[in-house]
Amino acid sequence: MVIAIHGGAGTILRSSMTAELQQQYEQGLDHALLAGYSILQKGGSSIDAVESAVASLEDFAMFNAGKGSVFNNAGKHEMDASIMCGKTLDAGAVSAVSNVKNPVRLARAIMQHSEHVMLFGGGAEVFAKQYNIDFEDDEYFYNEFRYNQWQEALKEDRVQMDHSDKKFGTVGAVALDKEGNLAASTSTGGMTNKKFGRVGDSPIIGAGTYANNNTCAISCTGHGELFIRSVVAYDISCLMEYKGLSLKAACDIVVYDKLVKIGGEGGLVAIDKEGNIELPFNSEGMYRASIDADGNKTIKIYKD
Amino acid sequence: MVIAIHGGAGTILRSSMTAELQQQYEQGLDHALLAGYSILQKGGSSIDAVESAVASLEDFAMFNAGKGSVFNNAGKHEMDASIMCGKTLDAGAVSAVSNVKNPVRLARAIMQHSEHVMLFGGGAEVFAKQYNIDFEDDEYFYNEFRYNQWQEALKEDRVQMDHSDKKFGTVGAVALDKEGNLAASTSTGGMTNKKFGRVGDSPIIGAGTYANNNTCAISCTGHGELFIRSVVAYDISCLMEYKGLSLKAACDIVVYDKLVKIGGEGGLVAIDKEGNIELPFNSEGMYRASIDADGNKTIKIYKD
Repeated sequence: MVIAIHGGAGTILRSSMTAELQQQYEQGLDHALLAGYSILQKGGSSIDAVESAVASLEDFAMFNAGKGSVFNNAGKHEMDASIMCGKTLDAGAVSAVSNVKNPVRLARAIMQHSEHVMLFGGGAEVFAKQYNIDFEDDEYFYNEFRYNQWQEALKEDRVQMDHSDKKFGTVGAVALDKEGNLAASTSTGGMTNKKFGRVGDSPIIGAGTYANNNTCAISCTGHGELFIRSVVAYDISCLMEYKGLSLKAACDIVVYDKLVKIGGEGGLVAIDKEGNIELPFNSEGMYRASIDADGNKTIKIYKD
Repeated sequence: MVIAIHGGAGTILRSSMTAELQQQYEQGLDHALLAGYSILQKGGSSIDAVESAVASLEDFAMFNAGKGSVFNNAGKHEMDASIMCGKTLDAGAVSAVSNVKNPVRLARAIMQHSEHVMLFGGGAEVFAKQYNIDFEDDEYFYNEFRYNQWQEALKEDRVQMDHSDKKFGTVGAVALDKEGNLAASTSTGGMTNKKFGRVGDSPIIGAGTYANNNTCAISCTGHGELFIRSVVAYDISCLMEYKGLSLKAACDIVVYDKLVKIGGEGGLVAIDKEGNIELPFNSEGMYRASIDADGNKTIKIYKD
């Protein structure tokens, strides 16, 4: 049983963090980690574990997903999420939904109850209502910090990442259960002040999320456009399957070489079928946490 | 200089085709093929060639893309398209736009003028207007055959492929230019009577479309959900790059083995950097055409 989660990567500097803030982030990660791990401990599936871990991150207002989602150009919250089962290769994804409390639960419902993989916008919301997915009003998603971020971005007419200091706000989880099944999930509130219905890598199977019992489970966070063009999550799986690389070697090539060459800042969490964990990122920091096969828990933010 | 195009795959049977219909399809393919090839002959780029070939297929009312797009559940035409340059790995994609005459031209504009890769819906239409993309009214997209398809599907409350006899309506093109640059593009009107804002593989970089000068250019047509889960286009590229397979061997594994095992009906058009052409499909037929490096033209519909 292994689980790893992230709360986004980017320019996360000790100098702009207080002890109190850091503790809150770590508590949020710890809470989500245990939400997933407790399911694995009870013999539950990896797909249930990643769904619960991501839902917990979505409920935590300090990460850019679910409740903590940033404002888009129209002053709305448009969220994306995806989930994939490594055993069946079933997948569900949702893009640009508003007022859905936990987009990951909608992605899961699409995976289980729809003949489709990806639904977007108002259509996805109609589907959500048919499957009793929880909705919340705009107030639930409001927070002053996000609002001020948006007002600033509006003034300067720019699209910005989660934090003014360039953070890629995304959350995600990967897990391996007792049965040896891998799963992955990713969720995001997108970019502050984003326009034109921009879709990043988070809801794209193969780019932001991928799981396959033959290789690995991956959830990404980073500069979405470059992650889409690099098909990052599936690239790691292919390097393992077709080139025989280890999870670490595959992650190193993709995150520290291929992505760096095209300016693709970010990182990912990864677990392979043997339960190895990799949490690589080429940015200053990445909110990340994991529990390995021996039960050792790690929660980290910075490079060291 | 090499070009290959498709107008969709599926259950296309001689028994349900008239000589006149067949001639019209072949003319549509021929016209699109030449729209792209003439650009290559004048020393133009592969990205211009695939854009023009796909735009020509979009203008031809008998294929399910652009003008010939099917009706969705709401009686509208919602179109997806994507384009990718194998030299720069730049890409543009658009999902669920209405009234855009040539979605491929919008995907190209997103690739060139937007910092984003993928835009959807109303937001994408706002972007289109800023870049003088042509719009047409609903009447332009109306045709009786499509309308009757939709009415039938509505009555039976089912989502259906392009034709009642299970055809995956998509168009696409791949090309190799004099400079040795590859490009790929795909466009579709989706599924008749589709609900919930379903997104198929056509606008997904890595799934329906991929191009990389190191390997190949791919445009897919088939059961989109299974093509997304299989990350089909990038899978072929990875089999070539990481396993050292030829284009043919990679296409054979993906189309005739991996996709068949999960029930993923469809096909694709592919060109590698040496100018080899593959047009594999595991369905009854695929509207396809190509001009090889020696200038030999092929236009085919059925297996034989």
